[in-house]
Amino acid sequence: MPEPTFTFPVIGVLRSCFRAKFGIPRQPGLILEATGAIELLPPYDQPNAVRGLEDFSHLWVLFVFHETIREAWKATVRPPRLGGDQRIGVFASRSPFRPSPIGMSVVRLRNIRCGHGKVVLEVDGVDILDNTPILDLKPYLPYADIVPAATGGFAAAAPAAEALPTSFTPAAEAQAKAIEKRFPGFMELARKVVSADPRPAYQREPGRIYGVFLHDYEVVWKAGENSAVIVDIRRASPL
Amino acid sequence: MPEPTFTFPVIGVLRSCFRAKFGIPRQPGLILEATGAIELLPPYDQPNAVRGLEDFSHLWVLFVFHETIREAWKATVRPPRLGGDQRIGVFASRSPFRPSPIGMSVVRLRNIRCGHGKVVLEVDGVDILDNTPILDLKPYLPYADIVPAATGGFAAAAPAAEALPTSFTPAAEAQAKAIEKRFPGFMELARKVVSADPRPAYQREPGRIYGVFLHDYEVVWKAGENSAVIVDIRRASPL
Repeated sequence: MPEPTFTFPVIGVLRSCFRAKFGIPRQPGLILEATGAIELLPPYDQPNAVRGLEDFSHLWVLFVFHETIREAWKATVRPPRLGGDQRIGVFASRSPFRPSPIGMSVVRLRNIRCGHGKVVLEVDGVDILDNTPILDLKPYLPYADIVPAATGGFAAAAPAAEALPTSFTPAAEAQAKAIEKRFPGFMELARKVVSADPRPAYQREPGRIYGVFLHDYEVVWKAGENSAVIVDIRRASPL
Repeated sequence: MPEPTFTFPVIGVLRSCFRAKFGIPRQPGLILEATGAIELLPPYDQPNAVRGLEDFSHLWVLFVFHETIREAWKATVRPPRLGGDQRIGVFASRSPFRPSPIGMSVVRLRNIRCGHGKVVLEVDGVDILDNTPILDLKPYLPYADIVPAATGGFAAAAPAAEALPTSFTPAAEAQAKAIEKRFPGFMELARKVVSADPRPAYQREPGRIYGVFLHDYEVVWKAGENSAVIVDIRRASPL
């Protein structure tokens, strides 16, 4: 008997500041400067389809982990929150490597733009890769989605926002400030993404150089013992 | 150009006390006596795949609205919470009639049973129809999924739990008590399901008789002006 499956349409595409997987926050809402725009695709790009959504502060985005969809499924995964060396069940994790690679993130709704035949939702606090296919959008319903009694396994507390306190060299700070004109909040975005310490748990050599791709730029930073310095910000061509 | 789509496997089936759509709570968590069991399907039925899930009190169930999947998509819907006569955008609603008919419910995890080649998750507070195909399970992460600042549009408050205070006739109460031996909590389940007033908003004739299917029984009740009485509970053949 063939394995049962279901097929769903892509209703939109999310454009985000994250042009590569490395550096993406491990959950949504951690970095409000992480902005995105959800563009509805035809035939879903009708202002009527989002009527009333403006009354909600937050919404759920159901999306496809399209960068990992070709990977084989494994029963256990090693979440970064457990140091990367402990295995837990894939259904006990939010890993993108799952049998049905559907992601689910709550984002803040900043604005809805309708016009020129387009419907675009501007959102904040995304943890989603640029160009991600969107399957569904739903309003966040506080009375149903907030479960005050819930207790939380391995990830009971939010990851440390300042795991790796981050500063800029004077040159990089000047570069970031110039970029602010085009992407307001860029400096805070870069600082927070690096501060969250996106390095794999097994990689801890001080002095190593990394790059994270934010908007149209590569933010180059150097890891210290317990801190990081952003040393350069360069224009990056799309990956 | 063909519309882009993605296909996902069914990783499990949810058996629930709700044998028909009428009477299902309008969000999860409202009726804890509403029990379900998620049975993982091969090749996902491995104890390893849920390892560590027992440390979480609640989990997200991503499922297919399989009863409505054949319906044509409409840009607007009429949520019962708005009295059924006001239209809002489908993406501003949690309606099952959506372009990608994927449901998302948080349920309480009561127990995990592994053995005899099966993996079964016993859950409480379901709002999901019996035999629903499951696409994914994820732990509920309080730090990420609880958004204290969220404000909530048309559904800011939970629906009234006691919209239609409900009592039993002596005969129906005796029937419910007998069923308790097989399905503990049945009496509360029946009372709460009817109390939530599952009637369509446009249907308000006192004296009308309704039936809701719970476990293997049809609970027959009579609507009054501002209350209801459960008058009979009969064995029902599966629908």
